[in-house]
Amino acid sequence: MVEIPDSHPRKRSLLSRQKIVEGSLKGLLADSAMIAHGRGEAFDYLLGEVTTESAGSAIRESAARLMAADHPVISVNGNTVLLAGKRALRLAAALGCAIEVNLYYRTPERVAGLLSLMEEQRTLVLDEAEPSGFGGDWRESVMGVPLLGASPDFRIEGLEGPRSHCTEEGIGSADSILVPLEDGDRCEALVNLGKEVIVIDLNPLSRSSKMATVTIVDEVSRAFEGILSEVVSNPNRVPSGWDNASALRDSLDEITEFLSKS
Amino acid sequence: MVEIPDSHPRKRSLLSRQKIVEGSLKGLLADSAMIAHGRGEAFDYLLGEVTTESAGSAIRESAARLMAADHPVISVNGNTVLLAGKRALRLAAALGCAIEVNLYYRTPERVAGLLSLMEEQRTLVLDEAEPSGFGGDWRESVMGVPLLGASPDFRIEGLEGPRSHCTEEGIGSADSILVPLEDGDRCEALVNLGKEVIVIDLNPLSRSSKMATVTIVDEVSRAFEGILSEVVSNPNRVPSGWDNASALRDSLDEITEFLSKS
Repeated sequence: MVEIPDSHPRKRSLLSRQKIVEGSLKGLLADSAMIAHGRGEAFDYLLGEVTTESAGSAIRESAARLMAADHPVISVNGNTVLLAGKRALRLAAALGCAIEVNLYYRTPERVAGLLSLMEEQRTLVLDEAEPSGFGGDWRESVMGVPLLGASPDFRIEGLEGPRSHCTEEGIGSADSILVPLEDGDRCEALVNLGKEVIVIDLNPLSRSSKMATVTIVDEVSRAFEGILSEVVSNPNRVPSGWDNASALRDSLDEITEFLSKS
Repeated sequence: MVEIPDSHPRKRSLLSRQKIVEGSLKGLLADSAMIAHGRGEAFDYLLGEVTTESAGSAIRESAARLMAADHPVISVNGNTVLLAGKRALRLAAALGCAIEVNLYYRTPERVAGLLSLMEEQRTLVLDEAEPSGFGGDWRESVMGVPLLGASPDFRIEGLEGPRSHCTEEGIGSADSILVPLEDGDRCEALVNLGKEVIVIDLNPLSRSSKMATVTIVDEVSRAFEGILSEVVSNPNRVPSGWDNASALRDSLDEITEFLSKS
């Protein structure tokens, strides 16, 4: 891979692209995962590659809801682990919740590969500074994050095939699920089960975005970072009445504003 | 690959995605070609997956310019051959021009693989109906399209590395180049050489879109089809004074309109 100079205005975007290409070459991603990443790149470009005002509101609301939940869980797929696995671990440690690897095109090999990559990422997280404002034992919290998904023993009602499989300990018994880059059908099935579904999706028009309880229209690593920062700095925030359709409208308006300035 | 039902509203988009995934698995594409395709998918989605009014104007202008050129050529990369190779051949047959395989990440293997795929596509084109209104000998015209790129003997001035290589017979001596999915640097270099560059790009904000003489903001197979239809039905159309910046502005307005209706 080519070295990207620090001065490149879109360095972060290009680094993310490299991570996805490398993960794909290692067999960690489904065939069409790179195409999904490209779609995300385009939408992020139209948001100016920053966390917009409406995404910031959704991040604050999501932090409040995850803290208020009895049994939150973070569901991750291959792209999420490659782009933001360490940030997912940091957030799970702060929330005291599990992470479940849950794939649309599930194969045991890919699940195992992603779980082992997350174990490596866990070691790297321990070498990094703990989030400022975190009150507990950071090392213990990071080491204590359950990494689930290797042995699915539960099925999401209303879905067919491999993508319906999950673990009872994780998604099966969760009341609130943070799901970056989710597919629309699964999002709908989880909502129909009465679960709170917080989706991170760069496309405000996608079915998942429309189906979710709260949609964060932002790039996954920025969103994780934002939620973590809220969790440690505003631990007493409580959920509001949230109008997701209106928040999505705001995201579309932000894209329109970006286009009008281009 | 999964069979996509005819009733699926986005069948064409999903079929295109399959072509790209399969081409990638066959080694015909660079690592990041699928990501580029995903970006295109997102922008096409924002155009409603149709040829917009402004794209239609650009298509008519491009047809006129390609017919008026002394030595037009169609430059294709891997994604173009996979998505619209047959349509490129039909258009080249109608214009009486060559097609040159020209890759950003050039390897002799990929160029050879794409040229051999185009020879197969040429056979398939002969089995299809000729474009209505074509006056000449269709079979002879299709068989006569030179497929260039295997032996680059020329360099595009102002560019470094493998992507500067091309053939003298094709891009080297062309006065007008139709280039779908071009990179910005090469587009700029070709314009600086005094060539007319007609770009097909779904992103109206890309550097190629901004650098081109005429930009067709449309999906590549729809654009080829549209130009061919113009060439056979309006062979006497002449080039106009074309304001490309204003046309790009119209494309952005069309996206804004799509978002406001979503």
